[in-house]
Amino acid sequence: MTNRNWALAQYRTSDGIATGIHVDDHVLAAPPVLEGLDVMELLADWDRWADVLRTLDLDGLTPVADADLVAPLTYPNKVICAGANYYDHADEMGVDRPDPAVEPFFFLKTPTTTVVGPTAEVAIFDDGRSQVDWEAELGVVIGRRCANVDAADAAEVIAGYLVANDVSDRGVFHRNGAVAPPFEWDWLGHKSQDGFCPLGPGLVPVWLVPDPQALKIRLEVNGIVKQDSNTSQMVVDVYGLIASASRVFTLEPGDVILTGTPAGVGMPRKDFLRPDDVVTIEIEGIGRISNKVVAK
Amino acid sequence: MTNRNWALAQYRTSDGIATGIHVDDHVLAAPPVLEGLDVMELLADWDRWADVLRTLDLDGLTPVADADLVAPLTYPNKVICAGANYYDHADEMGVDRPDPAVEPFFFLKTPTTTVVGPTAEVAIFDDGRSQVDWEAELGVVIGRRCANVDAADAAEVIAGYLVANDVSDRGVFHRNGAVAPPFEWDWLGHKSQDGFCPLGPGLVPVWLVPDPQALKIRLEVNGIVKQDSNTSQMVVDVYGLIASASRVFTLEPGDVILTGTPAGVGMPRKDFLRPDDVVTIEIEGIGRISNKVVAK
Repeated sequence: MTNRNWALAQYRTSDGIATGIHVDDHVLAAPPVLEGLDVMELLADWDRWADVLRTLDLDGLTPVADADLVAPLTYPNKVICAGANYYDHADEMGVDRPDPAVEPFFFLKTPTTTVVGPTAEVAIFDDGRSQVDWEAELGVVIGRRCANVDAADAAEVIAGYLVANDVSDRGVFHRNGAVAPPFEWDWLGHKSQDGFCPLGPGLVPVWLVPDPQALKIRLEVNGIVKQDSNTSQMVVDVYGLIASASRVFTLEPGDVILTGTPAGVGMPRKDFLRPDDVVTIEIEGIGRISNKVVAK
Repeated sequence: MTNRNWALAQYRTSDGIATGIHVDDHVLAAPPVLEGLDVMELLADWDRWADVLRTLDLDGLTPVADADLVAPLTYPNKVICAGANYYDHADEMGVDRPDPAVEPFFFLKTPTTTVVGPTAEVAIFDDGRSQVDWEAELGVVIGRRCANVDAADAAEVIAGYLVANDVSDRGVFHRNGAVAPPFEWDWLGHKSQDGFCPLGPGLVPVWLVPDPQALKIRLEVNGIVKQDSNTSQMVVDVYGLIASASRVFTLEPGDVILTGTPAGVGMPRKDFLRPDDVVTIEIEGIGRISNKVVAK
């Protein structure tokens, strides 16, 4: 895959977090005009900063040695996830083929405690009940406050894209002792355990991604390919997801929409993550994240 | 009901938002030691500020004329809600009597776009599909970062309490065209429309509430009593909810746990909110919020 695009990334410094430019697996210091601003602050005034970034000259930037990347959004406002949004994934999970004319299904992940960086360790319960699975996903980052957006206009509210892993604990999804159908499914335990949303490596600006529905998406566990698909397999496309989500609530700069995962998750084969596994996700033109699993 | 306790509140100023002390339906300016700090900032260093606030002398504070209250937490980290957590409410909704030994059911509301103040207008769709209902709830505000808290220690991580309305759109809860049970219920449309979480009037510090399980809780629509119960009716009590939620994820200062609603919601009687309705909730010792419904 080619990943020659650049991305807005964040890395640890002795003072806290700095914004950098991630390109070709290394990090360049951000230009002086961005000094002191983190990515959430850039997104809060995105129209202005996008204009500055469109003319970014990578050759003029200084490399940062051994940059320790954190999530490009350390504190998104909302993490909104589309469920069952790839045809090949719906098939493998044994649910009916989704109808793109039906409003997509969304759930939330907690924004502060699930989000971790592109190389963070992901801690899982090793207790016999948890069955922790991977889900490679294209993440869309909102750059403009908006509601009731038409799909035809949705490109205008996107700041950029990133790679996400919607880590999922299948073992706790069906609640023990549930008393009624609305309370049968535990979306929080399933999706919002600490560290269950690795994001990165950086935010690739929207103008560097000409077609978000034509990107190869691949996930490997310990080098073995598990998911290998294309964003063309989405049931409701990126613009349609933005239109639907923005009918439910106002979208804000820094909100992330995870667009669903393709076939190849562990659930159908009872193939779950174990401590010391390494999960690597790559999306064409967006980048690669790689997270090691550890026991809690 | 008696509401002689004081609460940390926030109100609009020409410069933004200021912290004040809400007591007896009026607002006093915060003491100079708190100047420039909003409630989220106080919660971020709560052990320190709690010590200062325990000796607060209300008599020395200046009244603020016509204070326009906003939510006491303008941007909580998480809004975590317990479902079906009052015996009398479970009965009226026709679900089996909940077992307090079963882990409680939680869902999330979006923290940034649902939360509004104690006198804010709540806008609802007036489209024939929406059926918007009220849910009076005791809200618990976390004051200390914590995970895996024992119920016996849970009081130590509470900063205080507030009144909440978990506004709920029953009309969109059951999804049209859902293809499989896990995707049958739309918790986002049901619970996370903009403005669907009025909070206030302020945060009553934990030391002013000797027993959170012995508080009268009452809701009126246009002066007609709809809910009239007591927090003693909770299935899993406040400390048990904190213990359970903190097993799912790390709780952070500013997180709010809504503890469920008692009997008397509109759903069983198809009695839903209409534009111009006024919803007033009062919890003994915590305060009163009153929100007018308007059409979107």
